[in-house]
Amino acid sequence: MKKGNMLIAQSGGPSMVINQSLVGAVLAARANRKVGKIYGSLHGIQGILDEQFIDLRKESARTLEAVAATPSSALGSVRRKPTHEDCIAIFAVLKKRDIRYFFYIGGNDSAETAYIINEEAVKAEYGISCVHIPKTIDNDLRENDHTPGYGSAARFVACAVRGDDLDNRALGGVKIDVIMGRNAGFLTAAAALARVDEDDGPHLIYLPERPFSIDRFIKDVKGCMKKYGRCVVAVSEGICDKDGTPIIAKFTQETDSHGNVQLSGTGALGDLLAKTVKERAAIKRVRADTFGYLQRSFPGIASEVDSKEARAVGVAAVQAAVDDDISRGSVVIRRKPTKKYGIKLEVVPLRKVARETRSMPDAFINRAGNHVTQAFLDYARPLVGALPLGDRFEQLKH
Amino acid sequence: MKKGNMLIAQSGGPSMVINQSLVGAVLAARANRKVGKIYGSLHGIQGILDEQFIDLRKESARTLEAVAATPSSALGSVRRKPTHEDCIAIFAVLKKRDIRYFFYIGGNDSAETAYIINEEAVKAEYGISCVHIPKTIDNDLRENDHTPGYGSAARFVACAVRGDDLDNRALGGVKIDVIMGRNAGFLTAAAALARVDEDDGPHLIYLPERPFSIDRFIKDVKGCMKKYGRCVVAVSEGICDKDGTPIIAKFTQETDSHGNVQLSGTGALGDLLAKTVKERAAIKRVRADTFGYLQRSFPGIASEVDSKEARAVGVAAVQAAVDDDISRGSVVIRRKPTKKYGIKLEVVPLRKVARETRSMPDAFINRAGNHVTQAFLDYARPLVGALPLGDRFEQLKH
Repeated sequence: MKKGNMLIAQSGGPSMVINQSLVGAVLAARANRKVGKIYGSLHGIQGILDEQFIDLRKESARTLEAVAATPSSALGSVRRKPTHEDCIAIFAVLKKRDIRYFFYIGGNDSAETAYIINEEAVKAEYGISCVHIPKTIDNDLRENDHTPGYGSAARFVACAVRGDDLDNRALGGVKIDVIMGRNAGFLTAAAALARVDEDDGPHLIYLPERPFSIDRFIKDVKGCMKKYGRCVVAVSEGICDKDGTPIIAKFTQETDSHGNVQLSGTGALGDLLAKTVKERAAIKRVRADTFGYLQRSFPGIASEVDSKEARAVGVAAVQAAVDDDISRGSVVIRRKPTKKYGIKLEVVPLRKVARETRSMPDAFINRAGNHVTQAFLDYARPLVGALPLGDRFEQLKH
Repeated sequence: MKKGNMLIAQSGGPSMVINQSLVGAVLAARANRKVGKIYGSLHGIQGILDEQFIDLRKESARTLEAVAATPSSALGSVRRKPTHEDCIAIFAVLKKRDIRYFFYIGGNDSAETAYIINEEAVKAEYGISCVHIPKTIDNDLRENDHTPGYGSAARFVACAVRGDDLDNRALGGVKIDVIMGRNAGFLTAAAALARVDEDDGPHLIYLPERPFSIDRFIKDVKGCMKKYGRCVVAVSEGICDKDGTPIIAKFTQETDSHGNVQLSGTGALGDLLAKTVKERAAIKRVRADTFGYLQRSFPGIASEVDSKEARAVGVAAVQAAVDDDISRGSVVIRRKPTKKYGIKLEVVPLRKVARETRSMPDAFINRAGNHVTQAFLDYARPLVGALPLGDRFEQLKH
C-alpha cells in the first residue's frame, strides 16, 4: 500500500468538460486515506517547474462542483513537451514534496509527457504512479472509443451548423464552415448531426482523412448548387492536399513546441476556400465562418453524457493509481457492444495512447470522400445528445 | 373598416427570433375577421415580384409555434432595394390579389422598402396598410430603445466571450474576437456582459462609434498584457479609421444592393489585427476568431425577453393596421422609465426608422473609447437575461 502526496495538472487545448475530470479525480482522492496533500499544478508541467501549486484540499466541495461545470482548464494549461533537463527539474520537485501520484489530463501530447516522466521515474527508481486522464475535442486518442471533450465540442458544432443551415436557407449561396481537427475529422463530421431532411446542410463534408482537391471541391459545390440552389460545407481546418501538406500551411508558418502548424485562431483557410468558390464557380454570395475556440469553450451547452464520462475518467484514474496500485497507464473509454449505449473504463499502457493519434475509420466516411456514413451518425449521436429544435423540427414548406 | 388580404415577408439578415414576429403577426391576423387570405411571400419582395407565396392560413398552430422557436427567416430573406420598376410590378400583384395589409419584418433597409412601397401606394391611390416590424441584431433602428433580435445575438456574444475568456486564462496571450455590427457597436459592446470580476475579459472593446487607431490599439494591448498577463479583445467588424473608412474595406470590395461593404463571412479583419499585434507588440500567442453568422442563428440560446418582445411586435403590427386602421408606420419598442424592466410598443412614421441608423449613445462608451460604461451594462442586461455559469461563478484562485 503506497501512501503519498498527489499532483494533478491539465495540458493542451481546454475543453468544456476537462474540469469534470479534474474535480472527479480530486474528490475521489480526497475520499481516499492513502492520499496526503493534493497539489494542483498551474499550467501543466510549467507549474511543476516553477513550483506554482494550489492546495486542492482547501477548496470547498461547492467551489469544486462549480468549477466542474465551467469550461476551460481551471488550473491553466500549457503546450510544452518536457526536455531531459525539464525531467530532472521535475523530479527534484516531485521528490522534495513526496509526490507519489501524478495525474496529467490531456491529449496524446500530454500522454507522451506522462510517458516521459514515467520513464525517467523508472530510471531514477522513484516510486510514483503516472496516470494519463484522456481529454481531447479532436477525439483522436488511440485505444479510446471516444474521448472526453469530444461530445460537447461536437454538440457545439452540430448546433452551429443546424442554425447556419437555416441561415443559408434564408439568403442562399454557399456557406463554408471551418471546424477544428488537426489530423482527425471526427469534430468536422459531427456537423452531419445537424441534418434532419435530405436537403438539409451540411451538404458536403471534407475531412483530413481524405486528400483535398480544389477541383473536386468546386465540382461538388457546383453539383450541390444545381441540386439544392444552395450549399453548406463543413470542412476541417486540417485538410491536406494529396501530398499530405495542410492546405492552411500555405498561409501560415507558426508551430508549437510539438512541431504542429497553427491551424486555429485564423480565418485564412475559410477565406481562401470562399474566394476560390467565388472565382471558379462564379457564385456571388459565398461566406466562410471559422468556428474557432468557441467549439471548445462555449458555456452552457456541454453534452450530458460527455460531462458524466469526463467525471468518470478522473475518478477511475485515482482508483487505478491509489487502490489498484497501477503505476502507469492511460484511462481509456470502451463502448459496450450493447444496443443501448454504455461504456466501460480500462487502463492501458501509456505508450499505446501517447504520441500517435488515430483518424476516422473508413466505415465512417462515404465513398466519394465528401460526407459521412450512417455508421458515423450512429456512433456520434449518443455522445452529443438531443439537439435544440429536436429530431424532426418543422419548417414552412417553400 | 378595411377588409382585405394580407401579405407578410421577411427581409435582411435573419435573427434567432424573427420567426416569433412572423408567427405573432400571423396568429393575430388569423384571429381577426377583417383579414382574408394570409400570404407569406418567399424571400421578401422578391417573392412578390415572382408571385412565390405560401398560404399561412393552412399551417397548423403547432407548426407555427415550432417555426416561431426556430432561428432564421422561415419565409426566406432577401437584400433587395426595390426600383421604381419593381414597385410597379409589386402593385400589379398586390392589386390583383386584393392585398390590403402589407407587413415587412426587417431593419432600416426593410423599413425603407416599406416606405417606398407606401409612397407608391399613396401616389397610385391604392388603399393599403404598410407596416414595418422591427428586426435587427445590430440594434441600430432609430426610435427604438432596442430591437428584436438584438437580445439573443447579444446573449450569444456574451456567452461566447465568457467561454473564450476562460479559454484565454488557460493558455494566455492575446485573443481577438470580431463581432458583427456595421455602424453600431451594441452587439460588440454586449461582450462586456461576460465579465464578473475586474480581471475578466473582454479587457478591451472597440466600437464603430470611435475612430480606430492601430497605434492606440497596440498600446492598449501592451498595457493589458502588463496588467493581467493576457488580453481578450472584442472588436466590431465595422471599426473605421479616423477618416471613416472601414478597416476591413482595405481587404474586401464586395457590396450589397444597398451599397454596404461585405463585413461578415470573412476572417480578414481578425487576421489582420492578430498579425499586427504579433509583429508590433512582439507577443507570441495571438489568436483571432470571427463569430460570424453563428451570432444570429445559433439554436437553443435565444433570450427569453427577446423572444417575447419579437412576438409582441408582430402582434402589435397587425393590431395597428387592422384594428386601429393605421395605414403606415413602424412598430417601435420604448422602455418604461420604471426600475423594473418593462416596455411599451408604439407606431411611428416609417421615415423615422427608414434609411439612417442610430449608434451607441456617448453615455455607453468609456472616455478612453476602448470599453463600455456601467450605463450600457444596465441597459443591456435585461435584454440578454442571466448567462450560463451565473452572475458570480467561482473559479480556482491562482
